[in-house]
Amino acid sequence: MAKVAPRTLSGFMELPPAQQMKMERMMEVLRRSYSLYGFTPLDTPIIEAAQVLLAKGGGETEKQIYRFQKGDSDLALRFDLTVPLAKYVAGHYAELSFPFRRYQIGKVYRGERAQRGRFREFYQADIDVIGDGKLDILNEAEIPAVIYDTFTGLGLRRFKIRVNNRKILNGFYAINGMSEKAGEIMRTVDKLDKIGPEKVKQLLIEELNMIPYKAENVLDFMAICGSNAEVIARLENFRGMDAGFDEGLDELIAVTKYLADFGVPEDNFAIDLTIARGLDYYTGTVYETVITDHPEIGSVCSGGRYDNLAEYYTDKQLPGVGISIGLTRLFYVLQEQGLLSDEIVTAPCDALVLPMTSDLSFAVAAATALRQGGVRTQLYGEQKKFKAKMNYADKIGVPFAVLVGEDEMAEGVVSVKDMRSGEQVKLSPEAAAAHIRAAVNKRNDTAIIVEK
Amino acid sequence: MAKVAPRTLSGFMELPPAQQMKMERMMEVLRRSYSLYGFTPLDTPIIEAAQVLLAKGGGETEKQIYRFQKGDSDLALRFDLTVPLAKYVAGHYAELSFPFRRYQIGKVYRGERAQRGRFREFYQADIDVIGDGKLDILNEAEIPAVIYDTFTGLGLRRFKIRVNNRKILNGFYAINGMSEKAGEIMRTVDKLDKIGPEKVKQLLIEELNMIPYKAENVLDFMAICGSNAEVIARLENFRGMDAGFDEGLDELIAVTKYLADFGVPEDNFAIDLTIARGLDYYTGTVYETVITDHPEIGSVCSGGRYDNLAEYYTDKQLPGVGISIGLTRLFYVLQEQGLLSDEIVTAPCDALVLPMTSDLSFAVAAATALRQGGVRTQLYGEQKKFKAKMNYADKIGVPFAVLVGEDEMAEGVVSVKDMRSGEQVKLSPEAAAAHIRAAVNKRNDTAIIVEK
Repeated sequence: MAKVAPRTLSGFMELPPAQQMKMERMMEVLRRSYSLYGFTPLDTPIIEAAQVLLAKGGGETEKQIYRFQKGDSDLALRFDLTVPLAKYVAGHYAELSFPFRRYQIGKVYRGERAQRGRFREFYQADIDVIGDGKLDILNEAEIPAVIYDTFTGLGLRRFKIRVNNRKILNGFYAINGMSEKAGEIMRTVDKLDKIGPEKVKQLLIEELNMIPYKAENVLDFMAICGSNAEVIARLENFRGMDAGFDEGLDELIAVTKYLADFGVPEDNFAIDLTIARGLDYYTGTVYETVITDHPEIGSVCSGGRYDNLAEYYTDKQLPGVGISIGLTRLFYVLQEQGLLSDEIVTAPCDALVLPMTSDLSFAVAAATALRQGGVRTQLYGEQKKFKAKMNYADKIGVPFAVLVGEDEMAEGVVSVKDMRSGEQVKLSPEAAAAHIRAAVNKRNDTAIIVEK
Repeated sequence: MAKVAPRTLSGFMELPPAQQMKMERMMEVLRRSYSLYGFTPLDTPIIEAAQVLLAKGGGETEKQIYRFQKGDSDLALRFDLTVPLAKYVAGHYAELSFPFRRYQIGKVYRGERAQRGRFREFYQADIDVIGDGKLDILNEAEIPAVIYDTFTGLGLRRFKIRVNNRKILNGFYAINGMSEKAGEIMRTVDKLDKIGPEKVKQLLIEELNMIPYKAENVLDFMAICGSNAEVIARLENFRGMDAGFDEGLDELIAVTKYLADFGVPEDNFAIDLTIARGLDYYTGTVYETVITDHPEIGSVCSGGRYDNLAEYYTDKQLPGVGISIGLTRLFYVLQEQGLLSDEIVTAPCDALVLPMTSDLSFAVAAATALRQGGVRTQLYGEQKKFKAKMNYADKIGVPFAVLVGEDEMAEGVVSVKDMRSGEQVKLSPEAAAAHIRAAVNKRNDTAIIVEK
């Protein structure tokens, strides 16, 4: 029979088993961290009516979207988790209680040009808090704590949560009579990290026709840095000149005020006035997160405050704040950089039971006892030589082989072999379960990301 | 602005938060149960090249499939998890160790006619063991244990795992000179549950032109029942007449032999000669699972042994055995029947911290302490009257409200109010965490399915 090549589409991640286990571990950390902050899991369809998904319409999105007909229906695959959330909140409005806090970890689809490290199918891991009409600033103040717990939960220590407030930026541009050009200026300033202040100044002058004095003003403002207290003190100098600016500054003060109580060290936090996060969506606090040793990755967790989640679906004013982790890309980069742990158990099982008797009753009962003791147990049933069985145990990387021969059966014990140390002990199946679980838990209680 | 109705497509499940929590709980039980048996989680793309996905081609599948063009690519959404597994195993053959055991819980797509309880996007939860060339019968013998642990893990006790062997059926038809009509006979016999033996006999005679004596033979055979030992004794009467039959009988004996050692009570198990599971895919043991009080639901977990997983992609002979749970449909039916627990906590959080002071430092620190103590905690920041805050606590169904006023702050404690009993105690934040966790764990340690 002619064969079809079993290929996977380019831009679609499909991991080998051991790597998939690491991905599962990362998802588990995210679920746990998001849950601890009272976000409830949601699961919305991957396919939506194109009319619903593209209610906002236009832009890059429409070009990248997977859209198709099925019968009479014009369908599309979700390209983010925010539009489905807007649809969900508008559609289920009467059933929900506000503030409504949800997380969603799900696949989204964008038909971008395939290139290394770019994915067409990828996981986003989002949280959002949605208010009904109003939403207190405390929700914005809490977001850095979620980010902090999430990334330390993954094992990172050297990362920085960068925070800014769009009202401060808009206010500053208003104060300096640059409101009209604010969008273009922000896009240019966004290149600071890449091309440096001199080149940015040049662009501001040459391309935006700014006079050098004003361009310097912008760069001086963006260069404001230091401790939270220092930055806020510098910003206080602008107070009283623009109502929006003052509001943004008060919000920034509120966001930084409780950081210590939220358990976020100032080392992992910085006010960064260069951060704008796009142009038309965010209206208040904005967040980015960078891994200190890998700034080239860019922000691994971003988001912000917005005023109107679902205006395309409802007249209700639904302000919110949210962040998103591009999980597939993050996983890809961490793996490329060799930052994922080899200590956690990635084998399909913790114990591989190798029967070496013709009647299997005792081996089966031992496997059952291990499982009842919480040990992930594979019972190896193939008729192979002992060496082939041990090779298999090696290849799947199982932490423990559990040997069950005539001697063990006669004594009512199993021989538990630690595949790393080679050490072998005879134990009752129940004691073996405790022994294996303790060793496996010790390995799994380490972090998935290992900083070098 | 004109609004777009925020509708969800028909045939696509989108749950309210509390129901989603129940679904998550079911998935968690499945993941745990599958993992305990040494199945490793996989995650394959939802989109595949149509040529790859439809390598087998033809039949009902092709009509139902979501297939579309993107650029030059002919794409399709997966309609089950078996074809992607075949692709995966063939494609990653060199990296895998056999037997290869994987589970996958993922969405699949079938554009069936929408009707109540039928879904176009639905979860399947599959396990498969794939051998390289050969696969020992012990793997088939283990499957009932996985099914048993999974459904008892969900809380069911009154269910029956029904097992048969295709070789026994084929052998029986060969012995009786009915091999040519075997397919049609099996399709007719499959109606036994619905229309009863008299009608089946009539159909066999009238539609398949069987002589009454032979039709009775078939019905007598299908009616064989009793304990495993009794059924096997009856089947032994046919031994020696057909090599395939004998092989199937030996396999059935092997599958039933270790049931007790696998921890499967005979009460939850039955040999049922009427089960065939489709026509051309399965070659050995076949499985169905029925909920005793709800036979109308049909089989909730089915599968069997097959000889060649990936023949469309590779020349390698890859036999396997697997089962599948149609999770979305199962969830839907359980909910309709009122069988899902209201005891497990379905609120977004275990504790809702209600600050009642103007400075929030202590309330924030208390929330942080609760989270560090493993309590899913929401900090309520909205400026509302006390009554509105308590209404919110009621509406989200949170088990505990944690009140933080001036008195509590002065004493360094929080007031923990049990929302069910109304009981209120003052505790340190750390003691509050332990108190809440114990109560929540007690509720969550109950089963998700409650039999009536």
